[in-house]
Amino acid sequence: MIVFNKHYKTLWFSNRTLYMIDQNSLPFEFRIIELKTTDQVCEAIKNMTVRGAGAIGVAAAYAMVIASNEVKSESELKLKYNQIASTRPTAVNLIHGLNEVFSKALESSTAAQIAAEKFADDDENQCKNIASYGETLIPDEATIMTHCNAGWLAFTDWGSALAPIYKAVENGKRVTVLVSETRPRLQGARLTAWELYQQGIEHRIITDNAAAWIMGSQKVDLIITGADRIALNGDTANKIGTLDKAIAAKYYKIPFYVAAPLTTFDKECQTGKEIVIENRTQQEVTHFEGITKQKTTEQIMISNPESLAINPAFDITPNTLISQYITPTGLLPACKIISLKNISRQS
Amino acid sequence: MIVFNKHYKTLWFSNRTLYMIDQNSLPFEFRIIELKTTDQVCEAIKNMTVRGAGAIGVAAAYAMVIASNEVKSESELKLKYNQIASTRPTAVNLIHGLNEVFSKALESSTAAQIAAEKFADDDENQCKNIASYGETLIPDEATIMTHCNAGWLAFTDWGSALAPIYKAVENGKRVTVLVSETRPRLQGARLTAWELYQQGIEHRIITDNAAAWIMGSQKVDLIITGADRIALNGDTANKIGTLDKAIAAKYYKIPFYVAAPLTTFDKECQTGKEIVIENRTQQEVTHFEGITKQKTTEQIMISNPESLAINPAFDITPNTLISQYITPTGLLPACKIISLKNISRQS
Repeated sequence: MIVFNKHYKTLWFSNRTLYMIDQNSLPFEFRIIELKTTDQVCEAIKNMTVRGAGAIGVAAAYAMVIASNEVKSESELKLKYNQIASTRPTAVNLIHGLNEVFSKALESSTAAQIAAEKFADDDENQCKNIASYGETLIPDEATIMTHCNAGWLAFTDWGSALAPIYKAVENGKRVTVLVSETRPRLQGARLTAWELYQQGIEHRIITDNAAAWIMGSQKVDLIITGADRIALNGDTANKIGTLDKAIAAKYYKIPFYVAAPLTTFDKECQTGKEIVIENRTQQEVTHFEGITKQKTTEQIMISNPESLAINPAFDITPNTLISQYITPTGLLPACKIISLKNISRQS
Repeated sequence: MIVFNKHYKTLWFSNRTLYMIDQNSLPFEFRIIELKTTDQVCEAIKNMTVRGAGAIGVAAAYAMVIASNEVKSESELKLKYNQIASTRPTAVNLIHGLNEVFSKALESSTAAQIAAEKFADDDENQCKNIASYGETLIPDEATIMTHCNAGWLAFTDWGSALAPIYKAVENGKRVTVLVSETRPRLQGARLTAWELYQQGIEHRIITDNAAAWIMGSQKVDLIITGADRIALNGDTANKIGTLDKAIAAKYYKIPFYVAAPLTTFDKECQTGKEIVIENRTQQEVTHFEGITKQKTTEQIMISNPESLAINPAFDITPNTLISQYITPTGLLPACKIISLKNISRQS
């Protein structure tokens, strides 16, 4: 995708070095980080310099390439594998990335690099397919609402929820994107708005609170979100606030689409009831981070200091509220999701 | 109500001085402001030292008392009236407060003070009646969700949406209140959480995004919000984000109540379609104010600097989503609202 008129991917490998966009400094500063050791890549995954399911998996794959140059035995390589695996224990793509490269890394670092590049290309190709299938759902002059960031920053390139929008614009359609800010961590206002601005796509940030009112009082043609995990019946875990928008979309009869690569469909999970929702620190609700007029980063307290908060990080949208799933193999209504049982996780 | 174990009202008049809690410094600092001139009261209304429909009306009424000591003729008093009226041009209660006192202020400042005190008492009594009627809707061990601040800070005392909760606790019921933070200005996290903390009432702040998920996955017995304006058919304008919660409440079959004094029912307005929604500055969405670790107040930017935002300040919840209205004269289902046509605005 385009950043300040130049083409970039979220992360790439060259001369034994992993390069990545520093997502912690966005949207206020655009920086490329160079990582040359396994320790450095692990730190970047841990501190969220790189985030998003697809991008984390690719970072892990390249970390194995770097590791293959640092070790002398299979047991040493296994230790590196474990070190990388423990950086974000619940990120399932991270393990996929490691597994794709591990056995090749035992052969040679060249073989490892070929495997990692194939894994990164596959991530990008799945997103490109999502773009092509999803694009057909977007009419010209569409107003599209999205939530959180499921854009190219969350993958190697293109993204999931935003990919159909990028494709529609490439095909000459005029679109406006409504970006819900996505409290508590504001990935919509910070990352999605930045991505769309860089691509020159018309967009407006709204508070999460304004979503229903805007659906009911203005033209909103469709809603597309990403997904963190999709059960076999189509129930979808995604960033908190997805459910509110899906319920409002149903109320106003606006199509609600979920876009995701095949790795997001969890064959071990029958329904959303099996998905455990992570409760994160209260501090994310009671404090905000941003930049001051003097361009320094500050964290400020925004609520009554003695009050406690509840902070569920995700919610589960039932299949009945989802119009269709946009996948790399095509569009699927909820009732067809179960057929994915027979599709390989690694596509 | 109680602040640091002492009884306070939001504002009160004594020795030719209007005292009020400085709502701009809450929740981080509790300060009482003393106002001795009409200019000072006007500035306090303008800069939102005092906010909330009821409280603004009472401040205006007392401003007329102060004005009566500053002028020598009816024409001078009329100028003061206009000065006060222009501080918050859309606040209908402000005009009610001025009108109640103006003719008395022509007689004497004592007569004016008696009229203003009667107006303040009436505001409080309406809220007390809302408390009593609304309390009957709250079971013991209830979990109640609310939005924005419709507590005692918005009136002389008691409040509208929070009044039934205060009454339930006074009657020995155990309650937990879920406070949605209320982006963009965070009146929930700042003011409602502070009020409940001061009253010793169990509560948790949630992001607005978490409301639907919590309704669907935890025990939420009822939702109560305030209102800015209620049309004759029951359509209700209130702080942005009220509508999202009402739609989700309907989806999960949770009772959704609106509490309001009689002045909020607008006899000139047939349905919500006639209510114009104010769009406020983008800065409220893209920036945030709070306190740093060093206890200084900072305004920080929280979103992509080049992106625009849309900021509707209110939304309109259709009567079909509201279970009942809690008024000073009793509980009313939406279909009965029209009978309020025959009730005087000033109760």
